[in-house]
Amino acid sequence: VRLAVIGVGLIGGSVGLAARERAGATVAGWDPDPTVAARARELGAIDAAPAAAADAAAGADAVVVAAPVGALPAAVARALAAAGPETVVTDVGSTKRAVVAACGDDPRFVGGHPLAGAETAGVEHARGDLFDGATWYLTPAETTAGILYERLHRLLVTLGARPRAIDAGDHDALLAAVSHLPHVLANVLVAGAARTVAAGGEPLPATGPSFRDATRVAGANTAMWRDVYLANADTLIERIDDARARLAAFRALLSARDAAGIVGWNDAAAADRRALEAGLAGGPVHELRVSVPNRPGVVARVALALGRAGVNITDMALYPAPDHRSGSVALWVAGDEPAARAERLVSALGFPVARP
Amino acid sequence: VRLAVIGVGLIGGSVGLAARERAGATVAGWDPDPTVAARARELGAIDAAPAAAADAAAGADAVVVAAPVGALPAAVARALAAAGPETVVTDVGSTKRAVVAACGDDPRFVGGHPLAGAETAGVEHARGDLFDGATWYLTPAETTAGILYERLHRLLVTLGARPRAIDAGDHDALLAAVSHLPHVLANVLVAGAARTVAAGGEPLPATGPSFRDATRVAGANTAMWRDVYLANADTLIERIDDARARLAAFRALLSARDAAGIVGWNDAAAADRRALEAGLAGGPVHELRVSVPNRPGVVARVALALGRAGVNITDMALYPAPDHRSGSVALWVAGDEPAARAERLVSALGFPVARP
Repeated sequence: VRLAVIGVGLIGGSVGLAARERAGATVAGWDPDPTVAARARELGAIDAAPAAAADAAAGADAVVVAAPVGALPAAVARALAAAGPETVVTDVGSTKRAVVAACGDDPRFVGGHPLAGAETAGVEHARGDLFDGATWYLTPAETTAGILYERLHRLLVTLGARPRAIDAGDHDALLAAVSHLPHVLANVLVAGAARTVAAGGEPLPATGPSFRDATRVAGANTAMWRDVYLANADTLIERIDDARARLAAFRALLSARDAAGIVGWNDAAAADRRALEAGLAGGPVHELRVSVPNRPGVVARVALALGRAGVNITDMALYPAPDHRSGSVALWVAGDEPAARAERLVSALGFPVARP
Repeated sequence: VRLAVIGVGLIGGSVGLAARERAGATVAGWDPDPTVAARARELGAIDAAPAAAADAAAGADAVVVAAPVGALPAAVARALAAAGPETVVTDVGSTKRAVVAACGDDPRFVGGHPLAGAETAGVEHARGDLFDGATWYLTPAETTAGILYERLHRLLVTLGARPRAIDAGDHDALLAAVSHLPHVLANVLVAGAARTVAAGGEPLPATGPSFRDATRVAGANTAMWRDVYLANADTLIERIDDARARLAAFRALLSARDAAGIVGWNDAAAADRRALEAGLAGGPVHELRVSVPNRPGVVARVALALGRAGVNITDMALYPAPDHRSGSVALWVAGDEPAARAERLVSALGFPVARP
C-alpha cells in the first residue's frame, strides 16, 4: 500500500506509524512546516517527505488529509486534484458537513473522523497504537466508489480502528451534543466560577470533583476550536438553544420550589444517562455475505443503513464477481443481536444475505 | 474527647472512625435506622449506640450532625437542645444558609461542610482517612463562642481535614458555582444527548472523554440533590441565569460567525481556568498524561514512584483505551518544580508522558 499523509502532527503521524507497522505501507508525508515533516521521518512515521503535498498525493493508493478543520475543504480539493483516478482520499476533521459539501461529489472522497488523540498534539506524541479500538467515523455518499470505500475501511481496520459509516449531518449533530456543547459549557462554567471566586475573595476548593471533571476541557486549543465552532455553528446553535431551554425549565422548577418536579427531572437525567451508556457495544463477531449489484453507491447505502441503526461493522471486504456486474460484500458485525439486526436491515434493502 | 455523631452513614461513620483512631475519642452514634447504627458499631465507627439522639448528644464535648440537608435545621436544633452549655455542635451539610439561619444564633453552633465522599454512600464505605487533606468549610458567626470554634477546628485537623472559615452566603454562592451548577449542566447534557441519539439512531461513541467527564455526575442521588437544589434555590437560580446569559452571548458570536469574538471568548475561558487553578494551594496545577499498558500494578507503580520521591498527586483519572489493552493515566501535580520532577520520574519508568 502506498499511503500519503497530508499534515503529519499527532493524528497524521500516528496514521503513518500504524500504516507502516501494521499494513506494511510505504508512507509519503507532507506538512506545511518542513521541520515537522523532517521530525516525522526521524520518528519513523513516514518513509519520504516530498517538497509538495501534490507530490505526496500523486501515486498514492490512499491519501489521508490531516489539516485543521478550517483548512480542510481546500486541502482535500488539492489532494483530489493531485491524486489518481483509483486513489481514495479521506480527511480526519472533527466536523464533516463542510468538507463533504465541498468535496463529497468526487467518487474518490470519503470524509473521516477518528475519535482519538484529542488530549495532546504534535508528532512527538504520535503512536502506532493510537487508533486501537477507536471509533473512526466515515461519511460515504451515494456517489462514493464502493471499491475505494472498501479499501479505506480495510486500511482503517488494519490501523486498529473501528470504522463506522454515518451521514455527515448526523455526525455533526452527534458531535455537537457529545463534544462541542460540553466544551462550550466547560467555558461557561469557568467564566462563571472565576467571577464568583473573584467576588467572594474565596479560592476554589482543592477538591471539587464535579467542577474539575466538567471543566477539564475549558479553554482548549483556541485555533482548533474556533474552526470547529464555526464549521458546526448552525447545529451547535440548536444544541445551545436546547440547553438554554432545559436550563429555563429547571429554573422554573427551582423558582416554584417544586420538589416533585425536581425529583422527576433528576430521575429522568439518571435514566438518560443509563440509556446512553447502554448504547455502547460488544460481543462475538458474525460474518454476513451480501450479494449486491456492482453499482456506485451500493456499498455506501449498506454501510449507512447499518450505521443509522446503530450496527457497528467490525470489518468489511468486497468480492466482485467475474462478470463485474455483481459481487458480494462480506460484513463482520459484533454481537448476536446486532448481527441479526444487520441481516434484517440488509435484506430489507433488497440484497440477499447469507451466513457463510 | 467525647464525640456524638448523629447519622452514621458514610460521612458520620468516617468521622467516628477517624475520631476513634486519631483523637482517641469515645464516640456515641445514633442513626434513624437502628440497623445502620448497629453496623457502624460492628465496623468500629462508634463505641456506643444509644436509643435516642438526645442521649448521644448529652454529655458530649462535640456533636456532629450528619443528616440530609432538608432535615438539618430541625436535627441541629434538637442536638442543641440536648447538648450541654460547653458542647460544640456542627453539621456536614452541603448548603449552609438554611441551617445557619435556623441555628446560627446559638453560640455553640458552627455550620460545617467537608468536601469529601460524594461518590459513595453508606457506612460500609466509611474510612478513617476519608478527610485527609480535604477542605472542611466552617461558617462561624459573630455570636459563635471562640473556645468552642477552636475546639472544633482542632478536632477536624486531627481527623486529617483542612478547616476553612467562610461566610455561609459566600459558601453557598461558591458551591452553587463549582458544584450545584455543574450537576445541573450534567443533567442538561445527558437529556440533550439522549434526544439527539434517539433522533439519529446513532449510539454514543465509546470514546467521548469530554462528554463522559462532563456527565459523570448526571442524575446523582435524587433525594440528596433535591434537598441541595431546594436549600440553595435562589443562589442557584442566579448561577443558572448567568450561565444562560453566557450561552446567549456565545450563541450571538456563533450566529455572526465572529471568528475573532470566538477566539477572545475561548482565550478568556483558558485564562479563567488558569486563574482558578492558581488559586489552589501549592501553586498552579499541571496535568501529566501518561500512556500505560493496561496491566495490574502499573498505576500503583507510577503512584509509588512519585510518592517515594515526595511528589504529591493532587488528582488522578484513568482513561482506558477502547481495546482495554492500554490507556492513559492523567495525573495532576501542584507546583512547577514537582510537576517537572514527576514528568522525569514517570518517563524513567518507561511510560510516555505528555502535557496536554
